[in-house]
Amino acid sequence: MDQVSKKIDLVENTEIPNLFPKNQWYVCALSKELSTEKPLARTVLNTNLVLFRHHNGQAVALEDRCCHRALALSCGTIEDGGIRCGYHGLLYNETGKCIEIPGQEKIPTKAKVKAYPIQEKNKIIWFWYGSDEHPTPNSEPPEYAIHDDARYVYDGDVYHYDAPYQLIHDNLMDLSHLGYVHLKTIGGNANVHMNAEMKVEQEGNTVKVVRHMPASEPPPTYQMAYPFKDKVDRWQEIVFKVSHITIWTGAVDANTDKLDDPQRQGFHMRGFHGITPETETTSHYFWTIATNPSDPEKAEELKATVVQQTKDTFDEDRIVINEQYQNMLKIPNQNMIDIHVDVAANRARRIIKELLQAS
Amino acid sequence: MDQVSKKIDLVENTEIPNLFPKNQWYVCALSKELSTEKPLARTVLNTNLVLFRHHNGQAVALEDRCCHRALALSCGTIEDGGIRCGYHGLLYNETGKCIEIPGQEKIPTKAKVKAYPIQEKNKIIWFWYGSDEHPTPNSEPPEYAIHDDARYVYDGDVYHYDAPYQLIHDNLMDLSHLGYVHLKTIGGNANVHMNAEMKVEQEGNTVKVVRHMPASEPPPTYQMAYPFKDKVDRWQEIVFKVSHITIWTGAVDANTDKLDDPQRQGFHMRGFHGITPETETTSHYFWTIATNPSDPEKAEELKATVVQQTKDTFDEDRIVINEQYQNMLKIPNQNMIDIHVDVAANRARRIIKELLQAS
Amino acid sequence: MDQVSKKIDLVENTEIPNLFPKNQWYVCALSKELSTEKPLARTVLNTNLVLFRHHNGQAVALEDRCCHRALALSCGTIEDGGIRCGYHGLLYNETGKCIEIPGQEKIPTKAKVKAYPIQEKNKIIWFWYGSDEHPTPNSEPPEYAIHDDARYVYDGDVYHYDAPYQLIHDNLMDLSHLGYVHLKTIGGNANVHMNAEMKVEQEGNTVKVVRHMPASEPPPTYQMAYPFKDKVDRWQEIVFKVSHITIWTGAVDANTDKLDDPQRQGFHMRGFHGITPETETTSHYFWTIATNPSDPEKAEELKATVVQQTKDTFDEDRIVINEQYQNMLKIPNQNMIDIHVDVAANRARRIIKELLQAS
Repeated sequence: MDQVSKKIDLVENTEIPNLFPKNQWYVCALSKELSTEKPLARTVLNTNLVLFRHHNGQAVALEDRCCHRALALSCGTIEDGGIRCGYHGLLYNETGKCIEIPGQEKIPTKAKVKAYPIQEKNKIIWFWYGSDEHPTPNSEPPEYAIHDDARYVYDGDVYHYDAPYQLIHDNLMDLSHLGYVHLKTIGGNANVHMNAEMKVEQEGNTVKVVRHMPASEPPPTYQMAYPFKDKVDRWQEIVFKVSHITIWTGAVDANTDKLDDPQRQGFHMRGFHGITPETETTSHYFWTIATNPSDPEKAEELKATVVQQTKDTFDEDRIVINEQYQNMLKIPNQNMIDIHVDVAANRARRIIKELLQAS
Repeated sequence: MDQVSKKIDLVENTEIPNLFPKNQWYVCALSKELSTEKPLARTVLNTNLVLFRHHNGQAVALEDRCCHRALALSCGTIEDGGIRCGYHGLLYNETGKCIEIPGQEKIPTKAKVKAYPIQEKNKIIWFWYGSDEHPTPNSEPPEYAIHDDARYVYDGDVYHYDAPYQLIHDNLMDLSHLGYVHLKTIGGNANVHMNAEMKVEQEGNTVKVVRHMPASEPPPTYQMAYPFKDKVDRWQEIVFKVSHITIWTGAVDANTDKLDDPQRQGFHMRGFHGITPETETTSHYFWTIATNPSDPEKAEELKATVVQQTKDTFDEDRIVINEQYQNMLKIPNQNMIDIHVDVAANRARRIIKELLQAS
Repeated sequence: MDQVSKKIDLVENTEIPNLFPKNQWYVCALSKELSTEKPLARTVLNTNLVLFRHHNGQAVALEDRCCHRALALSCGTIEDGGIRCGYHGLLYNETGKCIEIPGQEKIPTKAKVKAYPIQEKNKIIWFWYGSDEHPTPNSEPPEYAIHDDARYVYDGDVYHYDAPYQLIHDNLMDLSHLGYVHLKTIGGNANVHMNAEMKVEQEGNTVKVVRHMPASEPPPTYQMAYPFKDKVDRWQEIVFKVSHITIWTGAVDANTDKLDDPQRQGFHMRGFHGITPETETTSHYFWTIATNPSDPEKAEELKATVVQQTKDTFDEDRIVINEQYQNMLKIPNQNMIDIHVDVAANRARRIIKELLQAS
C-alpha cells in the first residue's frame, strides 16, 4: 500500500515531503468519551495515546505503553492518583511519572511515560501536534462556541475511516455529491445542488464556501423544526481550517433577513467536523450536529431526528470514501481530472500541501 | 508470498519471464452474470473491470475507476446511456467517454476511462488479453457450440480461487484424483481411474487426453439419465487450450458405437472450464455442465442433478487446491516429483511456459 | 513486523544471532492429541509437521507436504501402513518413505518426505530441534514423572499465542502479576505476592525461584481439597528449563513439615508448561495441572475444579501477553525498564541469549 499512501498526494499524484501539517491543534476526542472509569486507547497522527479523566476532572493523554514491559496502559485501570498498568501494577500520575511500583520502594527516575499536551474546550479534546520548534502549544485551541450556546441542542459521534484524511476533506468541501451519494437521505434533486450559486473565498489557511438557494421549498426536517410560512431563503456555509471543517446550513422565511447577516434568524443546523489522521492511511472523524429548536418542548425530539439523519448521511459517505480509497490502492498513481465542484476542495489541498512543504 | 507466486513455476520451480500468456481470449463472465440493472466488478489478468449490459444488449467492459476521483464505477448505476458514477454523477458511455458532468457544460476530452475489447459468444463473455503488437484482437473468440445446441440442457457457476491458475489446470488435466478427492461424490473405485487406458496427444497448443473404460458398470447418474440396457462403454475426453479446458464424458451401450466416433449416441456430460487468472495468486473458474436428456420430461430434473453433483465435486477440488497452494506458500521453492498421472498436466505447463518465454 | 520480532530481543532491544536454542527437546504435542484416526497439523520451530499415531501405537512426525504436488499430508488419511495423501493417494510409511503410488508400479527413490525425531515420554510428545552437528538426539527427553504418578490426577490443554515464546517465559517466571492480571481468579491480595520472601537460584541452564508464605490463610481451593486444620505454610516453586517450566505450589499445616523437604506432605498443585516457538512471532503453550486428592472420592471433582481455574487463569494471561506483543509492534524498538520482579525472568532471558550466541 505504501506506494499509494505514503507521501503521495492522492489527487495530484505528486510527492509530499511530510505526512501531516505540524503545529496544529487536532481533535483527539469528544469530551463525552472521557471518563474517570475507563481509559480510552486512541492513535492520532501516528501517536498512541491512552486518554482518561483525572479524578479532579482534568483530561489526560499519556503514551499508551508501560515503561516496564510495554503493555498498553489502556488495558489498565484508572485510580485516584492516575492510571495503573494491568500487568504488574505500575501506577502513573497525570504527568506520566511512575509513582508506585508494587513491592519495590525505590522508583527509578527512568520510570515514566510521555505526557502529551491536550486541552479541553467547548466539549472537545484538542491534541497539540507540534514540531521540534514547538513541542508545546504556541497558540490556543480553536473556539467552537456552539457547543456551549444555550440556544442549541447537539450531539455527535466518532467514526473511523480506512482512508487518508484528505479524502474526507474532499468530501466535505463539496456538497454536490449530495444528489448521488445521499439520494436516500438528505439528497434531493441533484441538479439543484449542482447548479446553486456558489462563492469560494480564501483567507490565509481558511477556505470559505457559500451557497445560497433563495425562495426554495423548505425540506421536511426544516418544516418540522420551524414554523416557516411558505418558501424560504436557504444557505450553506462551509469553512475549512487545517484540522476541522464547519458546515452551517439554515433558512429564513423568504425575503425576511439578509442571508449573509450573522444575526439572521430562522432555522439553523450547524455541523462540526474534526478530521484527524490516525495514520497515513486511516483517519478519525469527530462530528457533532447542533440545531436551534423554536419550540423547547420539541427540542429532544428535534435533536434525535437531526442526529439520526446526520448519522445516516455520514454512513453513506463513509462507504463511498472507503471504497474510493480501496480503488485507489487497486489502481495506484493515476492522474485524476478536475471538475467545477473541486474548486474548494483543491484550495484545501493546496493549503495542506504548502504547510507540508514549509515544515 | 512473492517468492513463491511471482514468476516462479510452482511445479518446476524455475523462473518464468511473464505472468500470463498474451494475445489470448480469456473468459471474464458468463452471459447470465451481466444485466442492465447492476454493474459487475471483476478483476481479470490484473485488470479491474466494470462489466454491464448496455440497454441495446451489448456487453461492455470499462476500466473500473472514475477518472474524476477514482471511485469504482461498479459502485454506480447503469442508465440508458451508459454507467453513472455514484459519487459526483459523471456519466460514461459504452466507449468509456464521459458524456455528462452534472452542473458543468464543457466536458474535457481527458474525461474518459478505458474500454476493453470483449465479445459475447455462446453465452460466454470473452476478454481479449493482448500485447503491444495486438492491443485489439487478431482472432475470433473460441467456439463453444454446446451452449447453443438444443439437444443439451446446461447451467454453471463462477468460482473464486485463492490459488494461481495453473494449479487448476493441473487438477483438471488429471482425473486420477477422482478416487481420493471425490470419494464421496463422483469418485468410485480409485484403481479403476488410475489404471484405465489413457492416451495423451498434443497438437500445437492443444493437449488432448482420452480414456476409455469399455464394458463397465454405468454409474447411478448415467442410469437415471439414459435407458442403458446393461454394461456400457465409457469415455473421458479432456481438451486443454490456453485459457479453457473441456471435459466431455459419456457412455453408450457396450459394443454399439465406436467410442472415438464424434457422432456416437448415448449419454453425454460435457463440461466447459474457463480458467482466468485474477492476479498472480488468485483465479476465476467459470464452469458449465451440459447434458442430453433422453426423456424431455426429465430434462430439468436431470439438469438439476448433474449441476448439483458437479458443484459438489468442484467444491471438493477448490478446498484441495486452496490448501495445496497454502502449503506451497508455507514451504516454498521445493522440488516436486512427477508421477505417471502428470503427463498431460505437464504438457499443459510446457505450453504455457513456452508462450510466456516467447512473449 | 520483522523489525520487532526477528532476531531482536524484545526486552533488551539488542540483536540476537539465532532464532531458537538448538539441540533441545521441545514439546510438540500432548499424548492425548495423537490418534490413529485423524492426523494433526502443527508447526513447531518453523517446521511444518503432520503428527499421527502408527497402528502399532508409535507417534510419528513427518514433513507435512506430499513430495508429489505439495498438498499437506495432514489433509489425508491414516491407514495401517502409514498416511495417504488426499490428492493423488501416495502412501507414506512412518519413516517418510513413499510405499505406494496408485496406478504406478515403480516408486522413485526420491519419493519420500522427511521424518523427524520425536519421542513420547510421560504422556508428552517431545520433538528434537537439532543442529548440523546433532541432527539426531544426543540426549534423552526430559522426565516429567508426575504424569505417571498414581497419587496425582491431572489434565491440560494446548494454547496458541500470537506472541513470541519468551514473553510467555517472562510471564511464568514472575508470579507477581497474579494480583493485577488474575484479580478475578487466583489473584487475591497483590501485596502478599509482591512482598513474599523470594529466592532465585541458577544452576547451568536451570533457574529456580522459591517463595515461601508461612502461616497464611489457605485459599478456597486448598480448603476444599485438603483437610487443613487452620493456618498453612505455603510454597511456590518455579523451575525454568530452556523448553519448559514447572510451577509447583502447595501447603502443609503450619509448622508441621519443612517447606523445602521434597517429601513434605499436604496439598500439591503441580503445573507443567511446555513453551514451544511456532514461528518467530507465534507460540504453542502446552500445559497440564496435577493435584493429589486426599479423598479419592473427590478426585474427579477436584481435578475438574483445578483444571477449570487454571484454564481461566491462562486465558487471562493469554489476553495480556497477546496485547503486550501487539503494543510492542505498534511502538517498536523502545527500551524497557526493569523492576525487582524481573530477576528470574531476566536470568531465563540471559540463558536463552547465551545459547543463541553459542550456536
